[in-house]
Amino acid sequence: MDGVIADTVVQFIRWYQRDSGVLLTKKDFDWKKEAEVLPDGRLRKYVTSKDFFRDVPLMEGAVEAVQSLMKNFEVYIVSAAMEFPYSLSEKKAWLEDHFPFISWTHIIFCGDKSVIGTDYMIDDHLRNLDSFRGKALMFTAGHNLNANTHTRINSWAEGLTFFREELKKGQSL
Amino acid sequence: MDGVIADTVVQFIRWYQRDSGVLLTKKDFDWKKEAEVLPDGRLRKYVTSKDFFRDVPLMEGAVEAVQSLMKNFEVYIVSAAMEFPYSLSEKKAWLEDHFPFISWTHIIFCGDKSVIGTDYMIDDHLRNLDSFRGKALMFTAGHNLNANTHTRINSWAEGLTFFREELKKGQSL
Repeated sequence: MDGVIADTVVQFIRWYQRDSGVLLTKKDFDWKKEAEVLPDGRLRKYVTSKDFFRDVPLMEGAVEAVQSLMKNFEVYIVSAAMEFPYSLSEKKAWLEDHFPFISWTHIIFCGDKSVIGTDYMIDDHLRNLDSFRGKALMFTAGHNLNANTHTRINSWAEGLTFFREELKKGQSL
Repeated sequence: MDGVIADTVVQFIRWYQRDSGVLLTKKDFDWKKEAEVLPDGRLRKYVTSKDFFRDVPLMEGAVEAVQSLMKNFEVYIVSAAMEFPYSLSEKKAWLEDHFPFISWTHIIFCGDKSVIGTDYMIDDHLRNLDSFRGKALMFTAGHNLNANTHTRINSWAEGLTFFREELKKGQSL
C-alpha cells in the first residue's frame, strides 16, 4: 500500500508542515531514507499516530491501474500493517473508500512479506522484494533510487506496460 | 486462530447462553456447521459484533505447543480476519495477551488463505486447507468431523507428535 497505491510521502509532507511550519517537497526525499528527511524521530511518531493512515492521498494512476490489472490477474493488496497498531482499521477503511472493488478475500495485512506466495509483488522496499520468491517489481521511491537489484517501475503507467508484456509472453508460450 | 489456537466454540456457547438462556455443550456442535447450531443467524451476528473476538478462550495446549514448535520452526499466525471489521484490532490485542512471544512480523490477517506460502498450515476449515500448496493439517472441529481429505490433528498434543515425526524424517534425509 504505502509508496505503491498510497502516496505516503505526500502525507509526511502534510504532517511535517502542520507540525513544524516547514513545507518539504517530494524532491527532498530523493536518495534518502524517509527517517533522515523527517528529523527528531518524526517518521516513527507519525506512523504510530492515530489518523495518519486514514487519509493518505492516492498514488497517481493507482485505482485505474489496479482495475485494469484485475481484468487479467488476481490482484491482492498486501500491506505490512501489523507493525502499527492503528493502521489495521485505518488501512481497511482506506481501501473500502478508494478500492471498494477489492474484496476482503484479497486483502492481506502482514508483517514480514516473505510468506506471500503470489506470482508477482510490487513494492518500494528492498526488504520485502529481496525475500520474495516470485517476480519482484520495485516501485520507485526516493529511498530506493540507488537500488538496481529488481525490475524498476517508475509509475503505474510503466507498471501496466510491464504486465501487458507479461501477458503477451504468456500467450506466445 | 479460530478453532486452532482460539476456542471459538466456547465463546459461541457463552454468548448464546447470555443471549437465550440456553446452555449448549461442545457435543452439540459435532457433525454440524456452527451456523446450524446457533439459530436465527446468530453466528453471523456474534462474529460481526464488537468484543466477540477480544476474549475468546485459548484452545487447550495451544500456547505451550506454539512455544515448543518455535524451537524448530518459524511459526506464523494466519487468520482470515478481514471479513469481520472489529476483529482486526481485537485479534491483534488477543495475540498480544496470549502470544506475546510472537513478533508482529509473524502475524498475518488475510481473507482467502490461498496465497500463504508456508510449508505447513494447520486449520479447521476445508476451504483453507484445500487450496493450500504446502502440507495441510486439519485441526479437528465439530464442523469437520466428516472430512477425511487431510491429515487430522485432534489436539495440540497430536500436533506436536506430528511435527516431531517431520523433524525426524528431515534429519534422516
